[in-house]
Amino acid sequence: MADASSTQHRAALQALLGDAVRWDEESLAPHRRDTWCLAVLRGLRGQLTSGPLCVASPTTVEQIPILLAYATQHRLAVVPFGAGSGVCGAVLPAEHDIVIDMRRMSRFLELNETALTVRVQAGMMGNAFEAALNAAGYSAGHFPQSIDVSTVGGWVSTRAAGQYSTRYGNIEDMLLALEVVLPDGRVVRTRVGPRSATGPDLRHLFLGAEGTMGVITEVTLRIFPLPESHVGQAFSFASMHEGLQAIRLFTRAGWRPPVVRLYDSVETARLFPASSSGGNVLLLLLSEGPAALTAAETAACAALCTAQGGTAIGTDPVDHWIKERNLVPGFEPFLQGGLVLDTIEVATTWDHIDDLYREVIAALQAVEGTIMASGHSSHSYPQGTNIYFTFVARPGTPEQAEAMYLACWEQAMEATLRCHGTIAHHHGIGRLRRHWMGRELGVGVDVLRSIKHALDPNGIMNPGALIPE
Amino acid sequence: MADASSTQHRAALQALLGDAVRWDEESLAPHRRDTWCLAVLRGLRGQLTSGPLCVASPTTVEQIPILLAYATQHRLAVVPFGAGSGVCGAVLPAEHDIVIDMRRMSRFLELNETALTVRVQAGMMGNAFEAALNAAGYSAGHFPQSIDVSTVGGWVSTRAAGQYSTRYGNIEDMLLALEVVLPDGRVVRTRVGPRSATGPDLRHLFLGAEGTMGVITEVTLRIFPLPESHVGQAFSFASMHEGLQAIRLFTRAGWRPPVVRLYDSVETARLFPASSSGGNVLLLLLSEGPAALTAAETAACAALCTAQGGTAIGTDPVDHWIKERNLVPGFEPFLQGGLVLDTIEVATTWDHIDDLYREVIAALQAVEGTIMASGHSSHSYPQGTNIYFTFVARPGTPEQAEAMYLACWEQAMEATLRCHGTIAHHHGIGRLRRHWMGRELGVGVDVLRSIKHALDPNGIMNPGALIPE
Repeated sequence: MADASSTQHRAALQALLGDAVRWDEESLAPHRRDTWCLAVLRGLRGQLTSGPLCVASPTTVEQIPILLAYATQHRLAVVPFGAGSGVCGAVLPAEHDIVIDMRRMSRFLELNETALTVRVQAGMMGNAFEAALNAAGYSAGHFPQSIDVSTVGGWVSTRAAGQYSTRYGNIEDMLLALEVVLPDGRVVRTRVGPRSATGPDLRHLFLGAEGTMGVITEVTLRIFPLPESHVGQAFSFASMHEGLQAIRLFTRAGWRPPVVRLYDSVETARLFPASSSGGNVLLLLLSEGPAALTAAETAACAALCTAQGGTAIGTDPVDHWIKERNLVPGFEPFLQGGLVLDTIEVATTWDHIDDLYREVIAALQAVEGTIMASGHSSHSYPQGTNIYFTFVARPGTPEQAEAMYLACWEQAMEATLRCHGTIAHHHGIGRLRRHWMGRELGVGVDVLRSIKHALDPNGIMNPGALIPE
Repeated sequence: MADASSTQHRAALQALLGDAVRWDEESLAPHRRDTWCLAVLRGLRGQLTSGPLCVASPTTVEQIPILLAYATQHRLAVVPFGAGSGVCGAVLPAEHDIVIDMRRMSRFLELNETALTVRVQAGMMGNAFEAALNAAGYSAGHFPQSIDVSTVGGWVSTRAAGQYSTRYGNIEDMLLALEVVLPDGRVVRTRVGPRSATGPDLRHLFLGAEGTMGVITEVTLRIFPLPESHVGQAFSFASMHEGLQAIRLFTRAGWRPPVVRLYDSVETARLFPASSSGGNVLLLLLSEGPAALTAAETAACAALCTAQGGTAIGTDPVDHWIKERNLVPGFEPFLQGGLVLDTIEVATTWDHIDDLYREVIAALQAVEGTIMASGHSSHSYPQGTNIYFTFVARPGTPEQAEAMYLACWEQAMEATLRCHGTIAHHHGIGRLRRHWMGRELGVGVDVLRSIKHALDPNGIMNPGALIPE
């Protein structure tokens, strides 16, 4: 039920932007949350607001400053929205907020085959973007598990990482330039180039800002010619320690297979039953590039894996993973079955990785009600790797669900910080993790607040996300 | 001759910081400028100030907030100083400024051989840093030509690039964490890790800030085990176009030899006379890494170079370059001989690189008095490359020297911007290039000013550098 001021604002915004502004229930419902487990749970329980005020779906950059000016004048908050697949609650608009859905700005603008760059509007879906590149013989090399349900602009806003990151990099390595509408309506366009030393790199103000610093409208990314060859291989190890050491040693030697995934024994048994026996752990590698490179890389990695106690077990698990890799069940059936669950991706350096894996698993298992805790490494670097944990817990009563969920997070975050880890490898912060930002960043949180205030003095951009109160 | 207030400030600072504060002429003289050609010229002519107020050489982080608090209270400016080898005038203190020379904070703090990281104080000299790593079997992979006359902190402040960048990256790829004293005296320490998504990456506020955002006191960098093999090769091409195409094609294919240098015919004749004939251009490549990788890379690059019209000419030019690479004459003898000269490093994408090379050379030659204009590419990427131009001009009278120098820069910057280039590949901005910052960054300059004001509201940090008036 809209109050009088809501009715006025909606009419005023429609007068300014026409049918780009909607507030029917069908438009509002999919914009009340992202895919944060707790918001999904609240949605199932009918606990989300009746808002937002409206959903604006701009089709041109020029509409955005108009909208931001109105929001500033009337002290309304604005929540940029990609495809709603974030899992940390960066999108959770309050009742009177304006959501900007970017998906009608989804044009593929320019492919530059000489400079190996591509320019697209921020609202283009990831799968359509990659398909358009593939049709021309290229790839962005960016394969987040969410590729079917995320936008290119969302990748930048959340500091996304893709499954092929060990060779092709993460989104910050791929982003060559962007166009952003600042909270005051001015438009920043950074210049495309191979590298520059013209002062601090302004792209980084918006990479990972989760809509708190402006609205990303266009991005230019690196592209790669489709690789000449792909070579998969898989190894079985007796322990996570052995597998992690193997990864450490081949990245140390300078090898960069795009896909490096090490599943603990629980996940090996669940996801690769055909390759599971006696509590083994499974390492998948995929090399891509010129045939001479993949041949050398595959042989070198195999030698190092074997020396660390690994046993080569063919390519079936890699083929299986490629087929199944983006098939992830939603939270709803579990929540409806009385469970709470989530994934927690953190990272640390090689000298702390064994501790981090062990301590986070133990911390999750120590929460009363936890029925499963597992993890895999999915993004490796010469300095360390991430672990992507999954937990499932069964609250005694439905009323205990939120507290149990938050207890699992609390324990996992504390264990991560004890092991010198970062609290977020690639899912971002949103509302879920901002409580721990200060523990990781220290005075850096004040720096972030200062910058936020400098760019958004009225605080209209996505309040509640990212920056701790 | 110090005025009364200078005398008071010096005494007050000495009372606070003891003999870390000096103002004898021997201490002041080397801190009046960096190595910007125009400042060197002014120094030779006795045109620099009698300042700065003093030189403070802190030995602990704790001394720096004391100094910044005094500067804030008395509205004095503070100029961080590494080793003074910058070439764009970022260091040019006014008469009453306080220079902070970081070179007494030069300890090698921690080598982590498992995580492949090294932590050092910002004032450590580049050559000592690399030598300490080499002694332990590692390298930072960062070889700016200034390595003997620059500090580790200076590399970060200026967004440095090293000669081996095509494989090992530039300083922003190497910097894992830093400690910075903010203008208000608070100390930011970012966390070491392989990768993170905890909001915008705060390291980038200080990378390339040239001392305008704070004082960098400590850095943590990636390191690499010393490579198993090194393979050099050299090719002769008929034209820059052919050589540039060869580089474009092997970086496109995914090869990353650390050293990729293409000299135009003028520089080939001057620097490699034994390999020069008939106006050819010279390409030097050096591959490093596991023997299987360098073998594959060397063969693949050779095949692509030959296909582009290149002729393999053995390894002598590479050996010659390795020996001579950091032997660069200072500006003084040329200036004293009545010439003006400089180097101008810019970059653009592959689709504009032929235009950029041709137009900048033509622009420099069009300035009356230019007697030499040449260039080479020294940092290549899949998206494009830099060109490092050198010009020499002979003014009709000594009074014309500055105007002629600035005319050469003006013409080169305009040509670069016409060719979609960045005005600075790795020397930074300082005072020399800030006039063109707005042309490259547009609204981004206002963003930079907002951030500067947020972090340094009193404007005490290195005023006059980087940010256009």
